[in-house]
Amino acid sequence: MLDEKTMAILKIRAKLLDAARCWFNQNDYVEVQGPTTIPAVGDRPGSFEVKYFDKKAYLAQGLQPYAAAFVASLGKIYTIAPTFRAEKLSDRRHLTEYWRIEVAQQGELNAIIRCEEELVAHVCHSLSKEPAEMFRHFNRSTMDLAKVQSPFPKLTCDQVIDMLQKDGFNVSWGQKLDWELENHVSLKFDQPFFITKFPVGVDTFFHKSDPERPELTLSADLLAPEGYGELGSCAQRITEKKVISKKMAEENVDPADQKWYMNFMEHRAFPQSGFAIGLERLIQWICKLAHIKEATAFPRLPDEI
Amino acid sequence: MLDEKTMAILKIRAKLLDAARCWFNQNDYVEVQGPTTIPAVGDRPGSFEVKYFDKKAYLAQGLQPYAAAFVASLGKIYTIAPTFRAEKLSDRRHLTEYWRIEVAQQGELNAIIRCEEELVAHVCHSLSKEPAEMFRHFNRSTMDLAKVQSPFPKLTCDQVIDMLQKDGFNVSWGQKLDWELENHVSLKFDQPFFITKFPVGVDTFFHKSDPERPELTLSADLLAPEGYGELGSCAQRITEKKVISKKMAEENVDPADQKWYMNFMEHRAFPQSGFAIGLERLIQWICKLAHIKEATAFPRLPDEI
Repeated sequence: MLDEKTMAILKIRAKLLDAARCWFNQNDYVEVQGPTTIPAVGDRPGSFEVKYFDKKAYLAQGLQPYAAAFVASLGKIYTIAPTFRAEKLSDRRHLTEYWRIEVAQQGELNAIIRCEEELVAHVCHSLSKEPAEMFRHFNRSTMDLAKVQSPFPKLTCDQVIDMLQKDGFNVSWGQKLDWELENHVSLKFDQPFFITKFPVGVDTFFHKSDPERPELTLSADLLAPEGYGELGSCAQRITEKKVISKKMAEENVDPADQKWYMNFMEHRAFPQSGFAIGLERLIQWICKLAHIKEATAFPRLPDEI
Repeated sequence: MLDEKTMAILKIRAKLLDAARCWFNQNDYVEVQGPTTIPAVGDRPGSFEVKYFDKKAYLAQGLQPYAAAFVASLGKIYTIAPTFRAEKLSDRRHLTEYWRIEVAQQGELNAIIRCEEELVAHVCHSLSKEPAEMFRHFNRSTMDLAKVQSPFPKLTCDQVIDMLQKDGFNVSWGQKLDWELENHVSLKFDQPFFITKFPVGVDTFFHKSDPERPELTLSADLLAPEGYGELGSCAQRITEKKVISKKMAEENVDPADQKWYMNFMEHRAFPQSGFAIGLERLIQWICKLAHIKEATAFPRLPDEI
């Protein structure tokens, strides 16, 4: 028997998904499902390996590169599907198996940011209309959720570095913001917010460069406030085959390993953007859960299966 | 770019899922997600093996045994999730990766059959209200779908054997109905129908025996008409720990391999039933597709990944 708190979380989880799908329907997004088992082209560190008959395959970490084909054919699309991360992280924010809400569409970074904030605000507002009883196990009131307002605050990565330096952190431009830094910024907010335009090279392999400042990418992370940190990330994708070939050379990526990805470049004749939100991350923040594993009934962790 | 026919199928797929979830909402089913990576206890023939850090794991073939815990806690539940079958079948009806619609609830076989037929009828009726244009690539009219009526016809396995013997097939009681036999029966119907009460031992390990005829199980397969065959199966589960222990002994199953399953038996103090429908099977029939791989954008087959 699952305990009462878990039951409450699972009911909130179901309501949250329902609210998200309702928003997608109202806004003409088509639901799709990409493959979960994907071909092995080179090694994929961070991905689980599957014995696929006599071949090696991996478990997908997202809809890429299939998203490009879906968008070219169907326009605005979304998927809600399990996702797998083979990283031995023993913090309170990572599961090896989680569900992601992923969106892709034609258009530029601003449009996908707008989509992401409207979706999250809609979900919060829907949940705020549930009986307060539903949140009695959590340090969260429906009033908090009703107060979430789109558009969300936005800081550029430059502004975040300035802020952290002023607060005494030893941080320099171009470095990845680790959990401690993210947490410090996140505590300054009481609703979700974005950090935008990460420098090239910070987990941004397929992200388009900012035409005005090529050292930056057209990317944004969505962060939960109150110390909960990253919920998801969004970006405008590179659409030119030769740009991605050049980046491969610069970043020492073997083109042979990315052939599979390159095959989908033909679908990228127009600006294309996407985002992914971790469902359990969103639940962790909404219910103020100490550990992300509480956000699902049968969590998968490096040492727990 | 996906071709026009594929795009039409993907739109029908999205509408179908939306209609199914709408029915679940109206009938107070709670959406849940079970784990996709499951522990290895003994070998699981037919399941894909995953390298889970230094352990071996498998990809789930369904919500069992977790369904029991969900039902004990939440009542009527459903999940729509990817499912994996590591079988080298090269027919037109099997994918190695497919999405299943799975339901579990307290109650007996008749109630779960009723749920399954009402769900499928609702989905067909919803799709029948879409513009006829949506089906222009397929030999299917919205009128056909509007005519699907619940309750569906029901034949016992005994009646099916009689029917097949009368039609000249060399088939005997207790044997598994293979594709050719299923197909023959399926061609006699113009809407989905059930075959009920399969004999003990025909893929029925966790199915409860019929108290009135212990050689039969409380199980039913849902079949599509017009030669499309099995869409899914439903059954009342065994709820007594000692009954399942006895079955293990009779069927030479090693109890050590099933410890994981047995741990969930504590949740089975009441009658419990469930069904699963293959989403792509349902689409294959609705759109009259020659091969099931057409029902998904990026199909996975034994030789295709």
